[in-house]
Amino acid sequence: MARVVVEVMPKAEILDPQGQAIVGALSRLGFPGVSDVRQGKRFELEIDGSVDDAELEKIAESLLANTVIEDWKVVRVQ
Amino acid sequence: MARVVVEVMPKAEILDPQGQAIVGALSRLGFPGVSDVRQGKRFELEIDGSVDDAELEKIAESLLANTVIEDWKVVRVQ
Repeated sequence: MARVVVEVMPKAEILDPQGQAIVGALSRLGFPGVSDVRQGKRFELEIDGSVDDAELEKIAESLLANTVIEDWKVVRVQ
Repeated sequence: MARVVVEVMPKAEILDPQGQAIVGALSRLGFPGVSDVRQGKRFELEIDGSVDDAELEKIAESLLANTVIEDWKVVRVQ
């Protein structure tokens, strides 16, 4: 068993209304030092030895991320 | 300017129906080697020098995570 993290974030050129709402809220709540926030997703996968890097890329690209608007990254943590 | 990542994941004892739905879909779609998936959130914050670690912890704990059901972690990336 190995653990893999897939990070999915909105592409830089895509507006992120959730992130902007958080920046606005932080400023009102007394944290003006935060100038930008982007919100994405984080998946933790438990995989067995049969899943290789190519298969992980395929899973991330085709199922976990929407590649039109999101960038993704696979990170093996164990 | 520095970049900080806040990772928010459902606590281990909390059911994660989104993650379970992904495991089911992966299995049906030909990826049986993935035995567990947990879905969480990932925030990228741009902060200026006035924001110290204590303030970051406060932001993560009080605004980005629901500490009843979620664990969170602050990671300085730059």
